This record gives sequence, C-alpha cells and structure tokens, in this order.
Amino acid sequence: MRIALDAMGGDHAPGPIVTGAVEAVRDEPEMTVVLVGERARVEAELAKHPDAPRDRLPIVHASEVIGMEDKPVEALRKKRDNSISKCWGLMAGGDVKAVVSAGNTGAMVASALFNAKMFLPGVRRPGIAAIFPSHQGPIVIIDVGANMNAKAEDLYQYGVMGAIYAETILGVTNPRIGLLNVGTEEEKGTDLTKATRALYQNSPLASQFVGNVEGRDIYEGHARVIVCEGFVGNVLLKAGEGAVEFLFATLKQEVARLLPELPAEVGQKVGGSLKGLKTRFEYQEFGGGPLLGIRGACIICHGSSGSRAIKNALRVAGAMSDDTLTALITERLAAGPKS
Amino acid sequence: MRIALDAMGGDHAPGPIVTGAVEAVRDEPEMTVVLVGERARVEAELAKHPDAPRDRLPIVHASEVIGMEDKPVEALRKKRDNSISKCWGLMAGGDVKAVVSAGNTGAMVASALFNAKMFLPGVRRPGIAAIFPSHQGPIVIIDVGANMNAKAEDLYQYGVMGAIYAETILGVTNPRIGLLNVGTEEEKGTDLTKATRALYQNSPLASQFVGNVEGRDIYEGHARVIVCEGFVGNVLLKAGEGAVEFLFATLKQEVARLLPELPAEVGQKVGGSLKGLKTRFEYQEFGGGPLLGIRGACIICHGSSGSRAIKNALRVAGAMSDDTLTALITERLAAGPKS
Repeated sequence: MRIALDAMGGDHAPGPIVTGAVEAVRDEPEMTVVLVGERARVEAELAKHPDAPRDRLPIVHASEVIGMEDKPVEALRKKRDNSISKCWGLMAGGDVKAVVSAGNTGAMVASALFNAKMFLPGVRRPGIAAIFPSHQGPIVIIDVGANMNAKAEDLYQYGVMGAIYAETILGVTNPRIGLLNVGTEEEKGTDLTKATRALYQNSPLASQFVGNVEGRDIYEGHARVIVCEGFVGNVLLKAGEGAVEFLFATLKQEVARLLPELPAEVGQKVGGSLKGLKTRFEYQEFGGGPLLGIRGACIICHGSSGSRAIKNALRVAGAMSDDTLTALITERLAAGPKS
Repeated sequence: MRIALDAMGGDHAPGPIVTGAVEAVRDEPEMTVVLVGERARVEAELAKHPDAPRDRLPIVHASEVIGMEDKPVEALRKKRDNSISKCWGLMAGGDVKAVVSAGNTGAMVASALFNAKMFLPGVRRPGIAAIFPSHQGPIVIIDVGANMNAKAEDLYQYGVMGAIYAETILGVTNPRIGLLNVGTEEEKGTDLTKATRALYQNSPLASQFVGNVEGRDIYEGHARVIVCEGFVGNVLLKAGEGAVEFLFATLKQEVARLLPELPAEVGQKVGGSLKGLKTRFEYQEFGGGPLLGIRGACIICHGSSGSRAIKNALRVAGAMSDDTLTALITERLAAGPKS
C-alpha cells in the first residue's frame, strides 16, 4: 500500500512526522509512505534515521506550507505549491490510496470537499469521524466538523459510513448507531434530530439504530457510532480534549502535593501510571480522525501529533485503503433512503 | 428571604432534599425554605432532624410528583397538583422569591416558559446557565438546554444575563464574554454564530466580547461567560459529566491496582484526594444551574443532588433573590440592541 504523508503538517513538523513514517514502514513491510514537503528539510530529518528503508520513503517536493493558523480557503488559493494540496493531487492521480496529515484541518477538508470528483458515488458530503474511548471500547462520533450545515440525509449517511468504519477498522459487528440529542425521549431535540430519527427508523439501518443518546451516555459505549452535526461534534471533540487536559493538570498538582509523602519508588509508579492514563485518553491508537465518504482513505491527525500518533494513523490509513471500506460505503448508500 | 424547594424532585428525594434544606436554614438565619411535596413524607424526613428550626421550614402539600422520566409537557398537564407547578405558583403569587428543584428539568423549564408573565421585561427566552470549572475559577455557560431554537438576539441576551450572574454571584468584574464556535477565526461557524458575533460587536457589550471560543479553550477561563445555543450547551454539559465519571472510574481502577503497593496510610490519602477532586469537578459549590431571565430566582439542580448540593443551591438562590440581579438584567437589556 502507498500512502501520501504531509511531512510539513503539525505543530512540530517535520521532525516527529518523518520519525512516525520511518517507524511505520519498518513495522509494515508492504507500506510505502510518500513524504510530501520541503525536500531539504525532509532529507535532513531522514538523515537522522540512517537505517530507514529509503526505497519505501520517497519524497515529493512541495515548496509551500499551509500554517496551522492560516485561513484554509485563502491559503489553498494563494499557496499553490503547498504540501496538503500535493497529497490530494497524488491521491486524485491514483499514485497513492491514502493521505495522512497533522496539518491545518480546515485546509485538509476543504481540499477534499472542493473536488466533488473525490466523493464516493452517492455521498452528499464527506464527514470527519473522531474516535472516543468508552467502557465498551472505542466508539465513532461523526461528524466532528466537516459540515456546518447538515441535513437529516447527511446524518443518515454519517451513520452508514461510521458503522462501516466501526466494523472494518474497530472490529465491531453490527455496531449500534445513536443520534446525539438532549434527551432520550422521542420528541426531544431540534427539527434536524426529529427528521434524522424518522429517516433512520425507515431505513435499512433501523435495526441498528438505538435512538437518542445524551451527552452523558457517550462514554457508556451502548452506541458504538454516534451521529451529530459538525458544529456540535467539533465542540464535543475539542471540549473533551480540553477537559482531559484540565483534569490531568489538576491531578498533576494533586500528585505533586502528595509526592513528598510517598516513598520515591511509589511516587515514580504513580507518576508513570498517570502518564499512561493520559495517553489512553488522548486516544492516539487510531492516530486521528478519518474523513469518510471520499475515494481513498484519509486520516486527519491532531496538530500536536507525535511520531506514535503518525505511525498509528499510517497503519489505520493502510487498513482503510484496501477498497473494502469504500466499496461497502457505495453499496450501502445505494441501498438506503435516497437523498 | 423565602425560597420554595421542590422536596420531591431528585433521584433520592425527599431524603437528601429535606436534609439540605435543614442545613441551609441552620446556616442562614434569614432564610425560610418552603418545602413543597407530599406532606406525610416530608414530615417523616423532617422528624429525623429534631433540632431543625421548624418555623423556617413550612410545608406546602402537593399530592403529585413528576418523575424524572415523565414527559414534561404531558406530565404538567395531567398531574395538576405536582410539586414543581406548586413551587412556581408560590413564586407567581409573590409568596417566595426563588424556586429550587432537583426534579425533572424539562418540567421545571416548561413551567416557567409557559407563563410569559414570569419573564422579566425585555427577555425573549429565559436560558439555563451551567457553572463549569476553569483555570481562572468558575465560568458560566449559557444556554444549556432551555431553548432549542435560539436566534442571535437570544445569544446576545444570554451574554447579558450570564455576565450579570458572573458579576453578582461569582464576583467577576467585567467578565469577558465568548461565543462558542468551531474555530477562533471570524468567518468560522454557522449563520447563527456569524449573526451573533455581529450583534455583540455593535452592542454595549462590545468591549467585553472576546469573540469565538473553541471547545478546548473553555477550561482556560479566558472568557468567564460563554454563550451557545441550548442543544450544543446541553450536549456539552452532559458530555462533560460523562467524561468526568468515565475518567474517575478509570482512575479508580488504576488506584486500586497501585494500592496494594502503597503503605496503608498513603493509600488512604490517595483515595481521599481522588474523592475531593471528583467533588471539585462535579462543581456542587453552586448547587445547580440558574434559569436566568425570569421574575425571581430559580436554580435547577442535578437529579443526583445530595444534601450538600441542595444546601448550596438554596444559598445561591438566596443571593440571587434580592432583586439586584433581576433589576440589572432589565436595565441592561433595555440599553442593548433591540430584539
């Protein structure tokens, strides 16, 4: 499998991005990662890994970088030779089957959305899925920000695509699908949630659809796929990150207060355990959120991604790129309510 | 000050509710709490506190109870003699200046909203505020579920009312007001966020308005008041509760795993410290969320409220009931952009 990686995307790029690519190709003998970015800087990073299998780490030069703070649409127009557009260009041209970036999310999504030829047949609007932890294991929340103007038909399609992701990547059989709402009763919510509910109840997904899911039930994992409109999903995703950061900052203070009273080796254990927990909540296992509904695979990583997140994103992108997932999406959308 | 308390509202009512009332009137010599509910059951609970100042704990009988799972509007219509409607009746009749309930939130809000005479002059729709923790101290998020169809003018009014709550109850001078959004850039978001932003920038609140706030920035506390529409706010509030529960459940497992390796007295300290932290995150200090924009004070408590949350809610309701807050709301809404 051949994946394009935006070597310049991310808060600390290209260092940890290139390292993640090196580790990924070492782990996966069938994987080639095309490093897209400023050739000299990427070369310099690769030089730090003298044992890297360079034949599976080709570089495609891109002279420009879209910054994390750049306005996506404007930046895509002005910086023609940017690494994100080049990644998508490689995919559109059939040279790669997946793209991965920890760069400007808006630019990643806009690049895909502006080119309707990149949409899978029958897809109204691609959606970004995020992987959350739950008591039952990882769950999928979709959409977390690709679509600011979702209709019920979009939320239906997100359920189809999210369930296929849960099946093929997370290994969940017949995942239950829930609709994020302000209460569990049928009549709760907005016009959008009511229309969405009706659509699911009269669709091939009716048996998987469990109805409304409240915010506090997300982590129970009863529904392994939760659909919502992009605005709500984005707030939810980022607020979750903020809450985890805040909580661990407070915990750290608390541990620091307790530490002088602990024997040194116990203190170390507590510290290590805390770090391990935080990593678990940051949910780097899947490396980032897949953009679903496009021809090919795409993983959008967090700007702060380290080499481990990048490596995992490449692994998941590889697993997504074998056409099973996209074929299933096309097939099941064709079977569902027409949009 | 005289406050009506829904003695039957809450997952464990009337036990902890009555206990909270007893503790509140003990602490506040000027406070009278009218206990509204099934007289016999409330009497039985009061009998457990033989030293309670009974002259400041009168009972108003209500023969019916709206359950936590009842459909609000239907229940209000069918159960005419319910404790929630009776609380509001006491307020409408001028007998009390505040109402507090840990019962069915939908019924509490519907009771208020169905009676436009209960709205303060100039208020379009009352909003529920929630108090979140942040690095800078408590912050106000409004609306968390009273209004499922908010317009920009509503979000403006929520900012006015939330800021007055932050000033008068939280003691924050000139609180900064932020608009919950999916990015910090001006052009981000939906039609609603764009219209809201424009309204603030041309209002008396322009100097306090700090623009967009992303989900992950909530806990930074840069904005002490964050406005959003009720659907998003409700999901945010409940997901935050779910995340804290999930995190502490996981932490508890981790601590249990470490405990055998800790000296007993250290283990106790770690356990106690964890419990203290959880309480801090549950933010019972303010007892619940105020419904702002009505004539009088109203605090809606969490269904799981214990006596401590009820006691705190009564204290805050008392502080809100001296007319300062409602007079300020009327005055500042009159000065702002007309709706």
